[in-house]
Amino acid sequence: MSITLEQAEVAVKAAKAKAVEIGTLMNIAIVDAGANLTAFARMDGAWLGSLDISQKKAKTARFFDMPTGVIGSLSQPGGSLYNIEHSNGGLITFPGGIPIKNAAGEVIGAIGVSGSSVENDNTVAQAGVDALS
Amino acid sequence: MSITLEQAEVAVKAAKAKAVEIGTLMNIAIVDAGANLTAFARMDGAWLGSLDISQKKAKTARFFDMPTGVIGSLSQPGGSLYNIEHSNGGLITFPGGIPIKNAAGEVIGAIGVSGSSVENDNTVAQAGVDALS
Amino acid sequence: MSITLEQAEVAVKAAKAKAVEIGTLMNIAIVDAGANLTAFARMDGAWLGSLDISQKKAKTARFFDMPTGVIGSLSQPGGSLYNIEHSNGGLITFPGGIPIKNAAGEVIGAIGVSGSSVENDNTVAQAGVDALS
Amino acid sequence: MSITLEQAEVAVKAAKAKAVEIGTLMNIAIVDAGANLTAFARMDGAWLGSLDISQKKAKTARFFDMPTGVIGSLSQPGGSLYNIEHSNGGLITFPGGIPIKNAAGEVIGAIGVSGSSVENDNTVAQAGVDALS
Repeated sequence: MSITLEQAEVAVKAAKAKAVEIGTLMNIAIVDAGANLTAFARMDGAWLGSLDISQKKAKTARFFDMPTGVIGSLSQPGGSLYNIEHSNGGLITFPGGIPIKNAAGEVIGAIGVSGSSVENDNTVAQAGVDALS
Repeated sequence: MSITLEQAEVAVKAAKAKAVEIGTLMNIAIVDAGANLTAFARMDGAWLGSLDISQKKAKTARFFDMPTGVIGSLSQPGGSLYNIEHSNGGLITFPGGIPIKNAAGEVIGAIGVSGSSVENDNTVAQAGVDALS
Repeated sequence: MSITLEQAEVAVKAAKAKAVEIGTLMNIAIVDAGANLTAFARMDGAWLGSLDISQKKAKTARFFDMPTGVIGSLSQPGGSLYNIEHSNGGLITFPGGIPIKNAAGEVIGAIGVSGSSVENDNTVAQAGVDALS
Repeated sequence: MSITLEQAEVAVKAAKAKAVEIGTLMNIAIVDAGANLTAFARMDGAWLGSLDISQKKAKTARFFDMPTGVIGSLSQPGGSLYNIEHSNGGLITFPGGIPIKNAAGEVIGAIGVSGSSVENDNTVAQAGVDALS
């Protein structure tokens, strides 16, 4: 089971709407069950550096089937996953990446958002997830 | 002048419609004037390897402001641009990447399509370009 | 709006003059609004390792439209952007990268300087910025 | 013996003047005896994809102390250096990269130019070389 393009575009649209609502400019990436980019949108004027970060957040969330921020809490100095960011061509482990599940609870993809504070990034990512549940 | 996300999404939608019309499964990428990814869609079941190719085609078309196939005709053995593909982290120089211009003729971005024959790829890319003219 | 080569060369010249004034050997990089290298100078005898750092500082400052040191204050262990340096092919987040703005306050590029202490790097970068304001 | 920044800037200036004279927009890179970037200028509006190519041409010319086009004649299918472009993070082996020598005939660096036809690229590169002899 993997997210469809149609579902991915629903998530992107909802995330964009939330980004507009809270007055931010976001990069929004959706990956499928294979962690491959499925849909992407960069809002006009969004940070250039967030393009890559949004995609890495989405991949990171699917690579380990958990929100990126959870991984980040384990990758700190002294933590059990210290510097895991060096793997897979670069991970991003602060909030803004969230797995997307189907009704049966299976992970079918993930969303990654970057362009503002990590709190805002995560809020916009959650809006994308919620649009599919 | 750079393509907007709204324009990019119009191009993606038109390209998808053309892909459906001709019975293909495509990866469709739009980059802006800075060759940065602006919108992307991968149709369900499209070749995984075409994800990267579609993005490289779009970038290549903007890097040199010409259709990718034109560059490919110059990069053949004995050609003046032989093996230019080794630059810029990897170029794709067969058809399927086309610059997008505004009414004044300025390049504002590019589209890259991959997932079928290069003829089909180019047809779908052209449909994306046409939707904005 | 993007910095011109003429402006970039004014910034490089001013930064070099400041580097000489304070007795340091610097690598000085200017990127445009698209974060693409526009002008660069490496002073004779400057650290080889600083060549890449100066360019990454300039790109980082433009990627997020803020001085690199600000990002570095957020990317520390426990910080909200911990290990953001793994994105975008490698960021440098200590001081020495500063956005360049036009009279209207728009970011038109950035300067990155590396070759001495981060305090000296930042002083030289600021001299480049000041030469354009 | 290595090219100085002062010499490199003389070469860049002469190359720019030649580019203007023949009506082209060039990326111009100078590397030193260690094949490290020493000076760089991208003329306003020059192809984005030529930024990397100009630097790779300069490095390639210094890596093997010969004009890039000579290497390209050996890297063709069946040639003795077939696909040498895969080394060193990517070489560019068509014309536009030329070693820079001192009065004693020692290679002290190289220039790489990209932004037009390979003939024009080479003409502009030669102008940079000539300015130092």
